[in-house]
Amino acid sequence: MSLETEIEGLKPWQKKMNKIIFGTETYYGRLFDIVLLVVILISIIAVMLESVPSINSVPKYHFLLSLIEWVFTILFSLELIARLLCVKKPLKYIFSFYGIIDVLSILPTYLGIFYTGTGALKVLRCARLLRVFRILKLSQFVDDAKKLSTALKESKNKIIVFLFTVSLLVLVLGTIMYLVEHGEHGFDSIPRSIYWAIVTLTTVGYGDIAPTTALGQFIASLVMILGYAIIAVPTGIVTNELMRSDKPNTTISKRTCHECGQDGHDKNADYCKHCGGKLDQSTA
Amino acid sequence: MSLETEIEGLKPWQKKMNKIIFGTETYYGRLFDIVLLVVILISIIAVMLESVPSINSVPKYHFLLSLIEWVFTILFSLELIARLLCVKKPLKYIFSFYGIIDVLSILPTYLGIFYTGTGALKVLRCARLLRVFRILKLSQFVDDAKKLSTALKESKNKIIVFLFTVSLLVLVLGTIMYLVEHGEHGFDSIPRSIYWAIVTLTTVGYGDIAPTTALGQFIASLVMILGYAIIAVPTGIVTNELMRSDKPNTTISKRTCHECGQDGHDKNADYCKHCGGKLDQSTA
Amino acid sequence: MSLETEIEGLKPWQKKMNKIIFGTETYYGRLFDIVLLVVILISIIAVMLESVPSINSVPKYHFLLSLIEWVFTILFSLELIARLLCVKKPLKYIFSFYGIIDVLSILPTYLGIFYTGTGALKVLRCARLLRVFRILKLSQFVDDAKKLSTALKESKNKIIVFLFTVSLLVLVLGTIMYLVEHGEHGFDSIPRSIYWAIVTLTTVGYGDIAPTTALGQFIASLVMILGYAIIAVPTGIVTNELMRSDKPNTTISKRTCHECGQDGHDKNADYCKHCGGKLDQSTA
Amino acid sequence: MSLETEIEGLKPWQKKMNKIIFGTETYYGRLFDIVLLVVILISIIAVMLESVPSINSVPKYHFLLSLIEWVFTILFSLELIARLLCVKKPLKYIFSFYGIIDVLSILPTYLGIFYTGTGALKVLRCARLLRVFRILKLSQFVDDAKKLSTALKESKNKIIVFLFTVSLLVLVLGTIMYLVEHGEHGFDSIPRSIYWAIVTLTTVGYGDIAPTTALGQFIASLVMILGYAIIAVPTGIVTNELMRSDKPNTTISKRTCHECGQDGHDKNADYCKHCGGKLDQSTA
Repeated sequence: MSLETEIEGLKPWQKKMNKIIFGTETYYGRLFDIVLLVVILISIIAVMLESVPSINSVPKYHFLLSLIEWVFTILFSLELIARLLCVKKPLKYIFSFYGIIDVLSILPTYLGIFYTGTGALKVLRCARLLRVFRILKLSQFVDDAKKLSTALKESKNKIIVFLFTVSLLVLVLGTIMYLVEHGEHGFDSIPRSIYWAIVTLTTVGYGDIAPTTALGQFIASLVMILGYAIIAVPTGIVTNELMRSDKPNTTISKRTCHECGQDGHDKNADYCKHCGGKLDQSTA
Repeated sequence: MSLETEIEGLKPWQKKMNKIIFGTETYYGRLFDIVLLVVILISIIAVMLESVPSINSVPKYHFLLSLIEWVFTILFSLELIARLLCVKKPLKYIFSFYGIIDVLSILPTYLGIFYTGTGALKVLRCARLLRVFRILKLSQFVDDAKKLSTALKESKNKIIVFLFTVSLLVLVLGTIMYLVEHGEHGFDSIPRSIYWAIVTLTTVGYGDIAPTTALGQFIASLVMILGYAIIAVPTGIVTNELMRSDKPNTTISKRTCHECGQDGHDKNADYCKHCGGKLDQSTA
Repeated sequence: MSLETEIEGLKPWQKKMNKIIFGTETYYGRLFDIVLLVVILISIIAVMLESVPSINSVPKYHFLLSLIEWVFTILFSLELIARLLCVKKPLKYIFSFYGIIDVLSILPTYLGIFYTGTGALKVLRCARLLRVFRILKLSQFVDDAKKLSTALKESKNKIIVFLFTVSLLVLVLGTIMYLVEHGEHGFDSIPRSIYWAIVTLTTVGYGDIAPTTALGQFIASLVMILGYAIIAVPTGIVTNELMRSDKPNTTISKRTCHECGQDGHDKNADYCKHCGGKLDQSTA
Repeated sequence: MSLETEIEGLKPWQKKMNKIIFGTETYYGRLFDIVLLVVILISIIAVMLESVPSINSVPKYHFLLSLIEWVFTILFSLELIARLLCVKKPLKYIFSFYGIIDVLSILPTYLGIFYTGTGALKVLRCARLLRVFRILKLSQFVDDAKKLSTALKESKNKIIVFLFTVSLLVLVLGTIMYLVEHGEHGFDSIPRSIYWAIVTLTTVGYGDIAPTTALGQFIASLVMILGYAIIAVPTGIVTNELMRSDKPNTTISKRTCHECGQDGHDKNADYCKHCGGKLDQSTA
């Protein structure tokens, strides 16, 4: 949906406001979005600091963080009201993806007056950072982001097959380790043994659960070497797709020149590169 | 072996049953397989939960899990009987790969009546999940799964050479660390030191065994940087094979020269590169 | 700025000295740089050993290290004076990148006479090792270093998009784990939970913070498998760029069409693919 | 040096023996090498088991392992004598690479009669396993092993640049962490902090040393994300080289057809693929 049809029928001041708040084409539109992102970032940092016991237990800091919290909540509320004022269907916005996020990011603070323990929910505000993708849309990153996501989408099927195989593998390996270690040394249930298998196969290796018997360590060694080989697979898949999406080879169309009969023409070619004859454009 | 010859000579009701239970072509055949997979998955989750001490020690849950266990075992027994009823040679099925898995997945529960301690064997049921590969065969995943497994098969030799070199390396590195750390701090035997070398080289790094002497930490650092370089090798191998399997036809056509019989010609070649004979252009 | 114009107008002995100290073209110039690097390396090792309590607490070693420290500091001071004597604008050198590093590497030792606790600053000397890049410039490594850095620069945008996505991901994952583990077992604040998410997603896995609840371990498992897939992305990006930087000329020539001015033609093209104009064959 | 010239001038029984012991062309030659490898493997396992305290402390096992040890040592001694009997210059063999390994692998056992504490040196025997590469030479693995080692050799320069950069990085990062964590929590000296930086950057992450201050954890997070990006570099290098060594593109010669002037011919082409003209063979 284009912005033009979106703002049709609004009053002039609403149109102007809409262009600034929702649009990213004008200077003030971009400025608004960037300022908003910075404000969101600061409010998230404030929520984070509030969760640190050594900071929040100091009365002075606690008061400061509460103050920041309320200032930002009121700012976000005003922003939400402004957004609702300059759209044609305010209710539709409220129940849109970004609308729900906007409401969820201010609600916990207001609820905090009546109920305690809703503080942690303030972190829902993180979701507002997703707005950054709207700004990125305008930047030079769009091509690279598109390439990356295309490559990942293209390799989706391969990755599902891979993940399914890995799931089956950790199921079997976890169960074997549960039987081998006799439910001791952290391997006290099958789910926990599967957790260990995942920790090991992905080469994370916390060490909170580690085999202690000789047989267990032998099997663990095999799992690790397996994980070594397995980590190569997703890398191979993604690299492969990235290169394919990047390559000029994929831009070669199947068209044949009507005059000299040769093929291998680029998709964006209009004339045969061998004889200069006009190429068929309909089947590029 | 095609399904048609498999079910030849069976009674009509057997044919119909066979198509549903073994086949995946019909709607009910697919439905049966999917329902079966879900049931297997639930029964595996039940076995897993049974292994969690904090759940199984509650009488209520213990009873529920035992009940589920028996219901599924009886269901699987009925399924096995149904399978045996609609094949020409029941005994042949029993001793086939999937037949053995089917029997092994119900046996432990029945044995549990007479003996204790066979509970853990129920997890053999996991193997039944391999049936999922039969369904996958029909889906759009088949190409991707085939590509992946082809790439891995093609790189088999390279991976064996790689694994052998790594094995020799961990043998030597483990022994050196055993000598350096004087059998202390977990390095109390050569096999355990080799286990440490594997944990380190694969970048898993549990930390259950870690060098404490200066020389030990120095050698460990070298091992880690080595592991860093080594992890690149399987990745390179798999990526390489994946890419090769992906574009075999981009430059080389399958045409054979009519005069000298050699192949390997480029797609854009007009004349045989070996004898200069004219190449067939129609099948480039 | 070429060396010739740099040393123009200096006295003969200054020119000679400049060529040895700053130049790398002559035999003595290279020798000087290599000797300097070795001396810097030894002085860094001395500073390191000084930081080891078990070595520095032995009076004999402490004296030896202090002596080495002073010898090297005086040597570096003489070197700095020599550098200043043979350049046209000594002040300009002092405030250049390498000049500041040179001063910073000798200052802490002299300051140590008046103040205590400046010892650790001696490690600033490490920065002097960057001079090695000046020598590398002359060697066969230059091409490879350039290729690597070009590949990294080319993939800069993709890597920024990737790092931003990862940042958002660890923010969300860390917050979820903070809520799930109720601020216990090390997850005592959101920043610390984010630290855990980074440790896990990058497959480092210290194990200083590890989930203990069932739900926490389940989420952690998902994070690890995610990290498994994610590690494939930067690898794919860099591999892709490295390969592209390696064969830029294999299919596309640098010819521009004389008629329409567009480029991007294949090497084997005879006619412009955009306007059908004849292409220049001599510079394919 | 070919085997034929090596065994020239020996007596017939020496020639026969030489072919079996040193050669791998004949059936018995291969058999001898394979049997030898198995024997070496068993003797290494025996040495390993001897290092396990819980096994070696049992008198029965200790006696058995000692027996095996002596049997194998005598076997290896006989083998060494046989080798010396059937070469022209026994002394030259003794001081060759494999000769030194052979002597070193039997010496510790004999020395054990006079001195104690030489037991651990028996593991030097591992080096004898290198003989496996002589057998591999004959197998189908030779091509793949050669490709791998070529790819690694080709990327040597790039890897050296990479390792140098990583070294400088861990030097700087380790020093920063030493200053940040004030020499506490394991960061008690610069070398140890560098060890931590390597453990973290390579994503091994033992957790024996882990930052506890907020600033330390923040820097550690940056190091990990850096390590994430850095691990992509060697992978990219090796993948790139592997593909280059594999690719048909590299088999394209720079020859131009004298008749039609077109290039892009394969290295093994005899005739122009565009016009069928004879290609120049001298500059392929």
